[in-house]
Amino acid sequence: MSEQVVPVVWQGDCLEVLDQRRLPGEEVWHSYRDSAGVCGAIASMQVRGAPAIGIAAAYGVVLAALEARGDVDWHGSIERAADELADSRPTAVNLFWALKRMRGCLEGVESGAEACRLLEAEALRIHEEDAAANRRMGALGADVIQAGSYGAVEVLTHCNTGALATGGHGTALGVVRTLRERGVLSMVHMDETRPWLQGSRLTAWECLREGIPCSLNADGAAATLLASGRVRWVIVGADRIVANGDVANKIGTLNLAVLARHYGVGMMVVAPTSTLDRETPDGSGIVIEERDGDELRHFGERQVAPEGVAAFNPVFDVTPAALVNVIVTEKGVIRDPSGQASPLASLV
Amino acid sequence: MSEQVVPVVWQGDCLEVLDQRRLPGEEVWHSYRDSAGVCGAIASMQVRGAPAIGIAAAYGVVLAALEARGDVDWHGSIERAADELADSRPTAVNLFWALKRMRGCLEGVESGAEACRLLEAEALRIHEEDAAANRRMGALGADVIQAGSYGAVEVLTHCNTGALATGGHGTALGVVRTLRERGVLSMVHMDETRPWLQGSRLTAWECLREGIPCSLNADGAAATLLASGRVRWVIVGADRIVANGDVANKIGTLNLAVLARHYGVGMMVVAPTSTLDRETPDGSGIVIEERDGDELRHFGERQVAPEGVAAFNPVFDVTPAALVNVIVTEKGVIRDPSGQASPLASLV
Repeated sequence: MSEQVVPVVWQGDCLEVLDQRRLPGEEVWHSYRDSAGVCGAIASMQVRGAPAIGIAAAYGVVLAALEARGDVDWHGSIERAADELADSRPTAVNLFWALKRMRGCLEGVESGAEACRLLEAEALRIHEEDAAANRRMGALGADVIQAGSYGAVEVLTHCNTGALATGGHGTALGVVRTLRERGVLSMVHMDETRPWLQGSRLTAWECLREGIPCSLNADGAAATLLASGRVRWVIVGADRIVANGDVANKIGTLNLAVLARHYGVGMMVVAPTSTLDRETPDGSGIVIEERDGDELRHFGERQVAPEGVAAFNPVFDVTPAALVNVIVTEKGVIRDPSGQASPLASLV
Repeated sequence: MSEQVVPVVWQGDCLEVLDQRRLPGEEVWHSYRDSAGVCGAIASMQVRGAPAIGIAAAYGVVLAALEARGDVDWHGSIERAADELADSRPTAVNLFWALKRMRGCLEGVESGAEACRLLEAEALRIHEEDAAANRRMGALGADVIQAGSYGAVEVLTHCNTGALATGGHGTALGVVRTLRERGVLSMVHMDETRPWLQGSRLTAWECLREGIPCSLNADGAAATLLASGRVRWVIVGADRIVANGDVANKIGTLNLAVLARHYGVGMMVVAPTSTLDRETPDGSGIVIEERDGDELRHFGERQVAPEGVAAFNPVFDVTPAALVNVIVTEKGVIRDPSGQASPLASLV
């Protein structure tokens, strides 16, 4: 299968970022030569999706190293840039994971030039490993679905978890791609995913490019879809999975998890182990990013709600492990995470 | 309390219709002098909300009678206009109910002029009765909520069921208004209600005008709101309630009903008895209107999904009676409708 869709391209001295805010209408690429630019690209959601954010941040550290190469305090400059990158989005744990890996490269390094070489190699590795992890998760997730079904299946997904959100193939949408490669996907239903419409703008765009059979629906139509009995699995990604198996993901995921349980539909969460946060015991410890209410009050240039109306605009929600049937990572599958004392323990 | 908001104004020889598609940005009124114009206003959703549609259609029949007054076949012309009005929207039963009442006026009538007088009086009665029914439902619904709570409550509503959707005060939003008049409303949360954004555009506009404490949220944030434990009731309207208590209402209502049950939050449906359809045994017999997928693919002039992507765009969904705690009508309250063989029987 062709992998035509990529969120970022590393050019050796700059990072090219596809501005996902402009899709599907326009394909606009920005070129960043310093870490502050990458930081802004993450904060303003030109690049989004937990794994892609981690990858972009890793390249941001490389750019910081290239900038600071000749400085006396090259090490301090890189560390400050990494701190700044860590503040660009609060919820995605992959961001902190990638930055930790990048910082780890600096141990014992003697010169700015050496730091540049090592950091670039590490960023490329993070990127390639993520793409490989997605192919592996696609296979594992598809195995779970095929083990429980005969013939082709319809699934429902939320937000964008495809090639645009990752280093390639996708997490939840990677499972969908693998189902299709195996000839057992009859339809992927896509929540439009308000307020950012990642389903309409990004997932639909990716699926259409590759001819994946797909259908768009308002988030509010999910119950009708699941009640119809046609959909066998809800498949979503994750921005963070904590020690007890609770899952932070795009706002609306918890709605789907409750609906899936009510209608006896499987709930599958697909995320690389870089998304795991073993330090946080349960979902109550997850900081949920709230964004400006104007994302609800305005639509592009158009005002859709009266000026001044209060709004509640959390970007993520927390789905308790008890509502998740399967967590798929590149290191293996966790079934019934709430039935285990330490569901993440088996993934080493 | 002032009732500043009205969806239609009868002027004796024309019906003025507030174009709700242009709210909250602009207040544009259209003036219709024939029933075909009213028909178009209903079909194009300038006027919407089951009770308001019934009221507008009743005035449409009056306009048909005024037009046909001097014709030999004045009776046939009125009947044809009523048939055309009945076809303007398929799901709202109030439409058929209002047209049946209007047709009933024609029995034994001898002249076009007499028909005009009788039909106008009947349309005004339908309008006034609806406003009175809403005040009564507001009181009954608020009684139910106050009986189960101490102090002020937070509630969540969907779509627009306010003065704009009715002859005044509102159905579900009428209960909210009454709670506020009684000083026991701390907040009404409003689903934005995709794809038409009636929550953002209409409910927020109505609430802001009257200073009702309100907060807007994406439909996908409803689970997070209910999981927080702050919201005690989900309050919605209905487009049709069938004999076993199943409820057709705006797409997304079923999502809320499943969520409310999961989180132990009350699910209240508020609708006048004109919404009851005793002829249809259960929800499987309700025709659900599906509208063009462009309502999802476009937003105003802006394209938000790639051209040509398939879309599933039902306007309504069906909530089984088993997920409803209370149905409030102007003739009384039905608790636990699925626990009764004929839940609508007590409303005569």
